[in-house]
Amino acid sequence: MTRVAILGATGYTALELIKLLLRHPDVEITTVTSRQEGTPHIASVHPSLTGRIDLPLEDLGPVAVASRAECVFSCLPHGASATVIPQLLAAGARVVDFSADYRLDNAAEYAEWYGVKHPDPERVGKVVYGLPELFRNKIGDAQLVANPGCYPTSAILALVPLLKAGLIEPRDIIVDSKSGVSGAGRTPKLTTHFPECNESISAYSVGRHRHMPEIDQIVRRGSGKEVNVIFTPHLVPMDRGILTTAYSRPAGEASEERLFATFRDFYAEQPFVRVVSHLPGTKDTANTNFCDVTVRVVRGRVITISCLDNLIKGAAGAAVQNFNLMYGYPETTALL
Amino acid sequence: MTRVAILGATGYTALELIKLLLRHPDVEITTVTSRQEGTPHIASVHPSLTGRIDLPLEDLGPVAVASRAECVFSCLPHGASATVIPQLLAAGARVVDFSADYRLDNAAEYAEWYGVKHPDPERVGKVVYGLPELFRNKIGDAQLVANPGCYPTSAILALVPLLKAGLIEPRDIIVDSKSGVSGAGRTPKLTTHFPECNESISAYSVGRHRHMPEIDQIVRRGSGKEVNVIFTPHLVPMDRGILTTAYSRPAGEASEERLFATFRDFYAEQPFVRVVSHLPGTKDTANTNFCDVTVRVVRGRVITISCLDNLIKGAAGAAVQNFNLMYGYPETTALL
Amino acid sequence: MTRVAILGATGYTALELIKLLLRHPDVEITTVTSRQEGTPHIASVHPSLTGRIDLPLEDLGPVAVASRAECVFSCLPHGASATVIPQLLAAGARVVDFSADYRLDNAAEYAEWYGVKHPDPERVGKVVYGLPELFRNKIGDAQLVANPGCYPTSAILALVPLLKAGLIEPRDIIVDSKSGVSGAGRTPKLTTHFPECNESISAYSVGRHRHMPEIDQIVRRGSGKEVNVIFTPHLVPMDRGILTTAYSRPAGEASEERLFATFRDFYAEQPFVRVVSHLPGTKDTANTNFCDVTVRVVRGRVITISCLDNLIKGAAGAAVQNFNLMYGYPETTALL
Amino acid sequence: MTRVAILGATGYTALELIKLLLRHPDVEITTVTSRQEGTPHIASVHPSLTGRIDLPLEDLGPVAVASRAECVFSCLPHGASATVIPQLLAAGARVVDFSADYRLDNAAEYAEWYGVKHPDPERVGKVVYGLPELFRNKIGDAQLVANPGCYPTSAILALVPLLKAGLIEPRDIIVDSKSGVSGAGRTPKLTTHFPECNESISAYSVGRHRHMPEIDQIVRRGSGKEVNVIFTPHLVPMDRGILTTAYSRPAGEASEERLFATFRDFYAEQPFVRVVSHLPGTKDTANTNFCDVTVRVVRGRVITISCLDNLIKGAAGAAVQNFNLMYGYPETTALL
Repeated sequence: MTRVAILGATGYTALELIKLLLRHPDVEITTVTSRQEGTPHIASVHPSLTGRIDLPLEDLGPVAVASRAECVFSCLPHGASATVIPQLLAAGARVVDFSADYRLDNAAEYAEWYGVKHPDPERVGKVVYGLPELFRNKIGDAQLVANPGCYPTSAILALVPLLKAGLIEPRDIIVDSKSGVSGAGRTPKLTTHFPECNESISAYSVGRHRHMPEIDQIVRRGSGKEVNVIFTPHLVPMDRGILTTAYSRPAGEASEERLFATFRDFYAEQPFVRVVSHLPGTKDTANTNFCDVTVRVVRGRVITISCLDNLIKGAAGAAVQNFNLMYGYPETTALL
Repeated sequence: MTRVAILGATGYTALELIKLLLRHPDVEITTVTSRQEGTPHIASVHPSLTGRIDLPLEDLGPVAVASRAECVFSCLPHGASATVIPQLLAAGARVVDFSADYRLDNAAEYAEWYGVKHPDPERVGKVVYGLPELFRNKIGDAQLVANPGCYPTSAILALVPLLKAGLIEPRDIIVDSKSGVSGAGRTPKLTTHFPECNESISAYSVGRHRHMPEIDQIVRRGSGKEVNVIFTPHLVPMDRGILTTAYSRPAGEASEERLFATFRDFYAEQPFVRVVSHLPGTKDTANTNFCDVTVRVVRGRVITISCLDNLIKGAAGAAVQNFNLMYGYPETTALL
Repeated sequence: MTRVAILGATGYTALELIKLLLRHPDVEITTVTSRQEGTPHIASVHPSLTGRIDLPLEDLGPVAVASRAECVFSCLPHGASATVIPQLLAAGARVVDFSADYRLDNAAEYAEWYGVKHPDPERVGKVVYGLPELFRNKIGDAQLVANPGCYPTSAILALVPLLKAGLIEPRDIIVDSKSGVSGAGRTPKLTTHFPECNESISAYSVGRHRHMPEIDQIVRRGSGKEVNVIFTPHLVPMDRGILTTAYSRPAGEASEERLFATFRDFYAEQPFVRVVSHLPGTKDTANTNFCDVTVRVVRGRVITISCLDNLIKGAAGAAVQNFNLMYGYPETTALL
Repeated sequence: MTRVAILGATGYTALELIKLLLRHPDVEITTVTSRQEGTPHIASVHPSLTGRIDLPLEDLGPVAVASRAECVFSCLPHGASATVIPQLLAAGARVVDFSADYRLDNAAEYAEWYGVKHPDPERVGKVVYGLPELFRNKIGDAQLVANPGCYPTSAILALVPLLKAGLIEPRDIIVDSKSGVSGAGRTPKLTTHFPECNESISAYSVGRHRHMPEIDQIVRRGSGKEVNVIFTPHLVPMDRGILTTAYSRPAGEASEERLFATFRDFYAEQPFVRVVSHLPGTKDTANTNFCDVTVRVVRGRVITISCLDNLIKGAAGAAVQNFNLMYGYPETTALL
């Protein structure tokens, strides 16, 4: 039995995390935090948890949290997360960080893309990126794991096997991604107000999205190839799901057969990546920890299509997968 | 040509109003107001108006507005509307008020339901309720018209003909209404945040919705019968549309044939109420000024079903219909 | 370990059933059937099952099925189900029937509402209705369980406690229900074609829905009171979920406090009914086996509001709950 | 006054066409056809037309149709359309063809992509493509106009100005398009069954969509440049709207300023293309004949984004625009 705490438990990723952890036979959730006043019950914020978990939302410092939990899941916003994590680690806790604070290569890149000075710059670049399909062997012993971004997971899993195998050129990659609205978080904004985004699709943050450098850097870590992707996210009127359509240029002879074989080999032992021959829809992966991947060759271009649930494989499910690896539980526990 | 102004032009009803008025051959929109700073272009707030209308959003007082427009459409919130309308009227403008400020019978009821003292109590109860199907002959000469609420329109049109004909009992009426999310306005809130209300239906304001007394009072004005409806609104994951299912008790012999005949007679000359034999869906009336009505008798109960577009027949379309009557334009101008 | 088979495995309820059973530690799915030719893999029909289950869809007779499974879940259409179930029972299998074939009191009522002669009339009226909250003690030993309809579950759970306690009149009940589209099944039809039903709400089958007599009869079985509900179903543009708003007349002194206390007592030991004080939305229960219930008194009427996931508590989850009771597994296994 | 007929009036494009034509002051719809038996009223198929138009759906041959209408809009499927159009033309009617039958360069390409022999091969390649922004001067005198495809309109308008100006390379263009479900037509299919496509996004017809050669050929006709686009359509859970994200490579110095200036010059006199600086959403153009276009330069790539309503600018609105040009009515009549 591992005692865990969840920081910043009022958002969507925390809700999904709680639901998954409630299915985990070896986890006890001892603490959920938020800065809301008056320690309301967690179910007053997430009505779907009524009767499932009996905890108040508390405004606790890292030492108190660490005294109640071996493992801490931080669902705090970027900046806030890296402020408390050093103290959690110092107090002996192991941490899975949902924020982007420890994903990039260095604090300078972080400052450039996130517009703030990194609160814990020394650690940046040394933290394992919690994508088990690429970095499983580093996760087991990690004290801190940077949980991947949702878009990056969909893109990285679609690109790295082909880059590593030398089947596509590293320097001409377009990543056109489409996401459900939960990816924008739970704070009401005009762009995510129902009558604004329902019945509409639009691109946003073109050329400026923070997941662009994350994709570049992790693809490089995973494949050894320098990439510089064009990343265009779109907002789709649905709750959850990301579909990524990635366009790349074949390097040499890249038949569909060979591309499929490469994918199937690469993911043969991975429980949560399914290489499929049909064109998958995000609904195939909704509420699951799966990422479905397929590939086509069209007019001399390679098109890889991947999809996943941004709140599960793109956030909470990946976190539980990392947690399982960190604590020696079977990797799929609570995830099937 | 009639010059018009729109107060509070940043919301959804104002947007629909502008779109309708742009189709009106005898209207010139001279002024659109809001309290936003810096007089941004109206199209910066409503991108769909790009290239359609070239006006800044101005923060103007009633005298300035009245100097630019014969007719003023007030899309201000309740309370704010009745604060400026007396000055608009004094300055000679005619006004169509989208707010609830002049719909109820008296200022005491207003204070009870709206929680604020009415800013213009003398006028309350003397203003024509702008539902042409019931009060057409009073609208033509009105200087001020209270534009009806969206739920009330759907309920009143479904009940008054049968009450007036004595076909249903006045004292046992249940109004179960379902509305799209645009009815909640354009200000982002958690309840209308896409991932909260999408893929969900819920009741809200049960027993406390402000349209309940409005239905009661206008049904009485229209039918002469005292009613005391049970009104339950529900939020439906769609942009627009209201469906009202009203349950009442037949008074004497109320066959479906007779109920239909009564409806057809009552609405024979009304251009925007369609008595239909099928079960209508809100989509049949989306983006139109129609209200579709049907009726069934089930196990000795009368079920009337009505639907309309809450932003058109439930707001902006009704306002244009009223405007046409006030200024002697054909009633359907810009509405078909 | 209990071996189970699923008949008619291509629809939505079967898909949800398979997903739940895959989480059940003591279940082995040995057989899935359909009349589709060529024994395609189950995942070719349900792509979300890719990699989860390795079975072909087979066109098998009841004897063959019974030889492979102790328990058979029949997701066949009405009529078809009661044709094979006698043979399954004769071959020694226990059966959970998703169809309506064994829910009504007698074969004459069945013929009246379903328009066909019942294939197994002797058994009708003697089969336990699989709603554990009312009939748990009969389920454990049942060889055949009639799994409840989705609308009836939401209505019955909202009405029976109050009727049994004598807090509402049995003879004046209106059940206004709103359902997501998956309730209409997986066969493409114009009414469930996306551009027809999206962004629209409509009533359907007013006064003619087959769940109306089911509600009447089971409410009577559960409460001892004769009821004759007015039942109006509506189609809501969402995948899943039912919200039922039931209007009844208080019998004597029915304060909200007393109504709540009655509900809380009645469901105190029921793991899947949550009596809540807030107004629940269907999303609170989506993908769960919970039914959330609340109650209000408005102008002397009792309004009970209940919601559930039509595919889970309204179908597959209830079936697993029944299965657990039939085989002595903890009632919540695979359902939390 | 021009008398018009609509062939194949039961689908979505015909419905939108009828709605637009009902607003046209100089049009009389005399005839609507379908192969449905028994000449049902058009409103029995399209309930939203109740009370708007009083015509039966008739199963008429081309000679009878031509005797009743100067202009015929054919909403028949490909193949069927080119079978009757020669007879309509011979009978003296002018025709706007919604099908793809006369869009491609030659009958061989048609046979390759549409899998059938062209019924009227001599005429193929000689018919004006009804995109006024490129071919206005040929439309006025045309007896037959090939109304453009929805995806092609969005792609062509986003690409041709830049190609013609030499600002992007013709040979490296990716067109990633996202469409609402109405684009798939009104015939119920599993892929467009609400619970299948709602809450999901997927790519379809990758590398095989028939609009791919149409884009290639019309871009060449419009710009003089040989292109060979990679076209990937996606199905988005919304009723209407297409968003196209096109990736191309700049030719020489293509700053955003210069790209915008080129677009603004090209569309300066076009009433229905709006060059916008913000990132548009499909909702900005819903229910309008506008196409909104913007452009960005990201990491040395040009990204053009365009959106429109697939049923209006992508079908019925374009047809009315063509009709206005053919008959000398102001181009925007019935379209604003």
